[in-house]
Amino acid sequence: MNEQPGRDGAVVSDCTLADLGEWELIRRLARYAPPGQFDDDAALLDERSGRTLVLNTDVLAEGIHFSDVTSSAEDLGWRAAAVNLSDLAAMGCQEVVGLSVGLVAPASTRWRWVEGVYSGLSEALARFGGELLGGDCSGGDQRLLAITALGRLGPGGAIRRSAGRAGDTVVCTGPHGLSRLGLALLQEDPALTGEGMGPQLPLDLREAAVTAHRRPTPRLDVVEALRRCRPDDEPSRVGGTDSSDGLAAAVTAIARSSGCDAVLELSALPVAPAMRGLPQAEAWCLGGGEDFELVLSLAPAWAEALIETTPGVQRIGSLKPGQGSVHWLNDEAPSGWPFAGFTHFR
Amino acid sequence: MNEQPGRDGAVVSDCTLADLGEWELIRRLARYAPPGQFDDDAALLDERSGRTLVLNTDVLAEGIHFSDVTSSAEDLGWRAAAVNLSDLAAMGCQEVVGLSVGLVAPASTRWRWVEGVYSGLSEALARFGGELLGGDCSGGDQRLLAITALGRLGPGGAIRRSAGRAGDTVVCTGPHGLSRLGLALLQEDPALTGEGMGPQLPLDLREAAVTAHRRPTPRLDVVEALRRCRPDDEPSRVGGTDSSDGLAAAVTAIARSSGCDAVLELSALPVAPAMRGLPQAEAWCLGGGEDFELVLSLAPAWAEALIETTPGVQRIGSLKPGQGSVHWLNDEAPSGWPFAGFTHFR
Repeated sequence: MNEQPGRDGAVVSDCTLADLGEWELIRRLARYAPPGQFDDDAALLDERSGRTLVLNTDVLAEGIHFSDVTSSAEDLGWRAAAVNLSDLAAMGCQEVVGLSVGLVAPASTRWRWVEGVYSGLSEALARFGGELLGGDCSGGDQRLLAITALGRLGPGGAIRRSAGRAGDTVVCTGPHGLSRLGLALLQEDPALTGEGMGPQLPLDLREAAVTAHRRPTPRLDVVEALRRCRPDDEPSRVGGTDSSDGLAAAVTAIARSSGCDAVLELSALPVAPAMRGLPQAEAWCLGGGEDFELVLSLAPAWAEALIETTPGVQRIGSLKPGQGSVHWLNDEAPSGWPFAGFTHFR
Repeated sequence: MNEQPGRDGAVVSDCTLADLGEWELIRRLARYAPPGQFDDDAALLDERSGRTLVLNTDVLAEGIHFSDVTSSAEDLGWRAAAVNLSDLAAMGCQEVVGLSVGLVAPASTRWRWVEGVYSGLSEALARFGGELLGGDCSGGDQRLLAITALGRLGPGGAIRRSAGRAGDTVVCTGPHGLSRLGLALLQEDPALTGEGMGPQLPLDLREAAVTAHRRPTPRLDVVEALRRCRPDDEPSRVGGTDSSDGLAAAVTAIARSSGCDAVLELSALPVAPAMRGLPQAEAWCLGGGEDFELVLSLAPAWAEALIETTPGVQRIGSLKPGQGSVHWLNDEAPSGWPFAGFTHFR
């Protein structure tokens, strides 16, 4: 870093984005938006009709978020849509309005690849709702998709990262780590070449892992389930986010935004059952990322109702007074904790 | 091109994006969207409140749409916002809701550059309305901005490319060619090094040209002016688009979408007065691009009222029955016509 006096005489930091890291970069950019706008997965827009619109942009760049080795064009299109729709779900959307697509590709790119991407996008829209809302195309050095999704909040209102409260139960909506295993299989990761690993894993596990990576499912369905099972005497407050950057990152984000600490329970780690026994299971469950489940913090009675009524939802811990740390019940942490997360600026 | 039999046995074309060109690429991508969605500058979303939302995405890539040689970070931020807001104006928006920003930059990018871009974006929003609505950041090989703008239509409804009719007067809202001259000055274009050219041009012309390139003004103001001056007995139909890709491209787009031919008048070419006499004046007026004025096709009485009430608006021609061609009155075309346009996939 290179500390220099700024125009106002104060010391400001003229560093690179790699120095800053994604969290600090986003914190700095948030100053340009209305207060609170950058705290969540997407931006909320109050419409005059009373329904709130939700807007979310995600960029997927070749070599960072996708490659021809791990994804066909169709899978990439699906995944690009799913990544965005997952952010809408994480905000409490029940209805997808549509997607706008900024496509960047070198002039030498084959039409077939573009066609595949749009086919995959269309498949996801046919499945989850919404339409293609135009976009833009440009040449560029690197293939890239910048997608903006627009949705509408359900009647239960928004899910905010900052809405967790001490005493809440923390749940997630499905197993974690499969997507990371799928990526490792597709990349023929040397860590998977040992005895009983990689190609020797059961076929159905390999298929499930590859599908989790290539065709993730945004959990828009959970928003409706949440609303339906809310006990009459509970207010509609839910804290939450999705686990796109990893389960531990999601829990940390909720705890930090809510001014609480999170307490996770080792015995309740949501490792995909078929992955138990893999040496990476716990690390990939907590830090693998791209599972696109929801992580929610809500009143214990409501959490219990959700767990009872919605297959896959499980309790993983709770919130307590604190300042954004993640602890382990009885100090029983997985070995290797804390795990390094994904970084966008390498 | 490489013609091959497709899966359905028909001959399909597996060509590159450079082979296709931008128009054909957009035509093919339009199949994935609802009918008509890709015909205009932006997508229309009917809101339940009765107000129609307009969504537009534009991508600006370094080396294609901007460079450090021609734009500071602040100018780039302003321009990226203005490019998008111009598309909103071209659809008939009077109100800007905001912008979502997808920022791609190599990890070695300085924070100061990002700060400059967001400062420029914020300046444009402060001037034209709307807020920063979040976004996403990613690493990448090339600096790039993918911006999505959201606006609301004015009470006059949408301006559509396809709404021109034979007999309409075609107007534009200001002079053309200045932005291209500004770019040439900033790039120290050898074509400007002759006698009385480039550095020898009057200082105020050079400044106006550089400002036109660096700080374009989206013509949101024209939408309000249009509505105010409409004669009581005219319906609110207006055909139009902006001249971001050049004046000739805008006229062609309106004529083609409206199922008409356009007739331009050489004596009415909207060359910036200070540029008259430059050998490139006519070519840059028609094909330079990035002037971000509106080009409108409307009933003659309404066009006259707009010209009378709104400084800068001038008649440039008319529409007649046809199939999308551009002609010149009395066959008096500028020398060198037709001029080559900008291409996104080189």
